[in-house]
Amino acid sequence: MAAATAAKVNGLLVTHLPDVRYLCGFTGSNAVLLLTGSGAVLFTDGRYVAQARAEAVGTRVVISKKAALTAACEWMERTGVERCGFDATHTTVIALEGMRRAVSSKVRRRAFQPVGSMVGRLREVKDKDEISLMRAAAALGCRLFEGMLGLIEPGMTEIAVAAELEYKARLGGAEGMSFETIVASGPRSALPHGRATTAKLPRQGFVTLDFGVMLDGYSSDMTRTVHLGKALPAELEVYEAVLEAQEAALAVVAAGVTAGEVDEAARSVLRQAKLDRFFTHSTGHGLGLEIHEGPRLAAKQTQELVEGMVITIEPGVYMPGRFGVRIEDMVLVTRTGSEVLTPSLKAWIQL
Amino acid sequence: MAAATAAKVNGLLVTHLPDVRYLCGFTGSNAVLLLTGSGAVLFTDGRYVAQARAEAVGTRVVISKKAALTAACEWMERTGVERCGFDATHTTVIALEGMRRAVSSKVRRRAFQPVGSMVGRLREVKDKDEISLMRAAAALGCRLFEGMLGLIEPGMTEIAVAAELEYKARLGGAEGMSFETIVASGPRSALPHGRATTAKLPRQGFVTLDFGVMLDGYSSDMTRTVHLGKALPAELEVYEAVLEAQEAALAVVAAGVTAGEVDEAARSVLRQAKLDRFFTHSTGHGLGLEIHEGPRLAAKQTQELVEGMVITIEPGVYMPGRFGVRIEDMVLVTRTGSEVLTPSLKAWIQL
Repeated sequence: MAAATAAKVNGLLVTHLPDVRYLCGFTGSNAVLLLTGSGAVLFTDGRYVAQARAEAVGTRVVISKKAALTAACEWMERTGVERCGFDATHTTVIALEGMRRAVSSKVRRRAFQPVGSMVGRLREVKDKDEISLMRAAAALGCRLFEGMLGLIEPGMTEIAVAAELEYKARLGGAEGMSFETIVASGPRSALPHGRATTAKLPRQGFVTLDFGVMLDGYSSDMTRTVHLGKALPAELEVYEAVLEAQEAALAVVAAGVTAGEVDEAARSVLRQAKLDRFFTHSTGHGLGLEIHEGPRLAAKQTQELVEGMVITIEPGVYMPGRFGVRIEDMVLVTRTGSEVLTPSLKAWIQL
Repeated sequence: MAAATAAKVNGLLVTHLPDVRYLCGFTGSNAVLLLTGSGAVLFTDGRYVAQARAEAVGTRVVISKKAALTAACEWMERTGVERCGFDATHTTVIALEGMRRAVSSKVRRRAFQPVGSMVGRLREVKDKDEISLMRAAAALGCRLFEGMLGLIEPGMTEIAVAAELEYKARLGGAEGMSFETIVASGPRSALPHGRATTAKLPRQGFVTLDFGVMLDGYSSDMTRTVHLGKALPAELEVYEAVLEAQEAALAVVAAGVTAGEVDEAARSVLRQAKLDRFFTHSTGHGLGLEIHEGPRLAAKQTQELVEGMVITIEPGVYMPGRFGVRIEDMVLVTRTGSEVLTPSLKAWIQL
C-alpha cells in the first residue's frame, strides 16, 4: 500500500474491529490484527478460541492472556518488525502509551507510526461480494418499510412502530438494527434524530421513519416520511422541495464527481425554495460494516466518488416546533451514475 | 476533584458521550462538554438545536458549524483556560492532534493534560436515581426471561427466540438492547459469545440466553441457561458447579471487598470441580449508561467494591464442541453485602 511505503513501515497494527473483520473475517469483540511481511497474526482472548478458528481466514491465531494489543506489540518486536503503522483515528492516547510500553526502550521511539485510516479508505469501495450483501440488507429495509405502511395509524406509539419494524427485521434475518430506530411523528418530525418515544402518532401530521438493519454484518439505511390525515399546504410544499433536492443530488452521483458537488446539488434546490437554513446537516455518508463510513457528503468536500462506493443521499428540512421531512436512499456509485438500492416509493404517501 | 487538582488543570474536556450524558443529560450523538471555573459549556451541531435545549441541564449550549471538539478548544483558549484535562482512554491520537491545532502555539505545549477517566470513575458508583433506573431495567429483563420460558421449544430458531425477546423488550419500554442478544443452543452453548443464529433449538441440550435492555439510558444484563429434554449426567454436574460458583461469588460481594476476591470465590469453586480451565473469562463487570463499565471483576484485581456500584456476577463453563453453561445476575453492592437485581429462578429449568 502506498501509504505504508511512504511512512516506511514494515508492519501494520489493525485495532479497529470492523477493520479486523474486513481484513480477516473475525467478528469477536476483542481482537488485534498484525500484518507483516511474513503474514497476518490475529490476537484475541480465551472466549474466542473456537470462533477465531472458524472465522479467521489467512491468519495465524494467538490466544493471549495479556491484552491483545500488548501481545501484538511484543510479537511485533520479537519478529523483527521495527516500524509499525497504526491508525491514529482509532487508537486512543492511552492505547498508544500501552503500545510503547509493550516494546523495549531500544525500539520505542520509532516503533509506531501513524499512517491514517488505511483500512478505512479501502473499505469505502465495496467489492462484488460486499455489494451483494448490501443489496440484500437494503432490500430487507424496503420490505420492512412497505410492511409498515399497512400498520401505521393514529394513536399507535412511536415505540410500537419501532418494535414491529425491528421484530420483522429480526425474523427477516437481521442480526439487529444498524442504529437506534428513528420514529419521529407530528412536531417531533422536526428533530433530525428523533428516536422513537412513547408519543402517539397524531391524526394529522408527518411520521419520519429512519432505520437500518444489520444483515450478515452489513448495514442498510433509509428514511421515508409519510403523512397521516389531511395535509397542510406548507407540509406539501416542504415535502416536494425535499424530494426535489434528494432527486437532484441523486442525479449528479457518479464516479469522479466530488462529495461536495452532490451536497451542493441538494442544497441549491432548497436554497431556491428558501428552505436551506432548515437543512441543518450534511447530505449523506458512506456505509458498510459500519453505519457511518467515508466518504462524507458535505459542503465543500473535495473527495471524489469512486465506482463501488455505497452512500446515502438524505436531505431534510426541519421547521422547529412544527414539522420536518427527510427522504433518504442508499445508493451504489457506478461508473456513469448510480443505482438506488432502496427503491421504495418516495412520492407523497398519505395514510 | 483530586485528580484535576493533582494535574493542575483549570478545565476539563469531556468527549466520551456517556460521560457527557452523565454530567449534563444531553443524549445526542455529537457533543463535547467543557467544564471550567466559570461553568459548563456543551458544544454540538445544528441537528441538535432543539434537543440540546430540552435535555442539557446547567450548561450553556453552543451550536457550532466546526467540529464540536475544535469549537470547545477555541472557546477554552479564548476564555483563559490554560491547562485543560482530557480523558486519554477515550481520546484518539488524531483527536489530540486536532485539539492541539485548535489552540495557538503559545499555549499548545501545555494546554492538554491527560487526567485519566475521571468521569468514568465517578460513574462506577450509582446514585439513588440511577439505582432506581437500573432496578427497573433489571426487572424488565427478568419479566422478559420469564415470558420466554413459555415460548422456547425444540425446532425454533435462535433468531426467533431473540426476535420475540427483543420485541417484548421494546413494547416494555426499552430503547433497544444493551448488546447483541446471545441465544446459544446445543453445542453452540459452548461459545461464550454465541450470538443468535438460524440454528434450531435441539430436542436435547442447553439454551443459553444472555441479553440486556436499555431502559431510560441504563443497561441491564442477565444470563440464564435452560435445558431442553432429558439431561445428561455431565450436563447436570456442570450446571450445579456453575451455579455453586455463581452463588459463592455473590456471597462475598460487599463494600470493601476487592474485585479479585469476588473473582476468586467463583474460580475456586470451579477449581475444586476441576472445571476452572473451562472458565475462560472474568467473573463480571460494572454497568450503567454503558454495558461495560468499571470495575472489572477479574483475577488479581485490587480495586475495592464500593456501596452503590452495580456489577454482574457471571461465571461460566464451556466444554468445546459439547455444551456450555453460564449464569449471570446483575447485583447492587451494599454496605454489608449485595442485592440481586435479577431474581429470576436459577435452579435447573427443564423445558
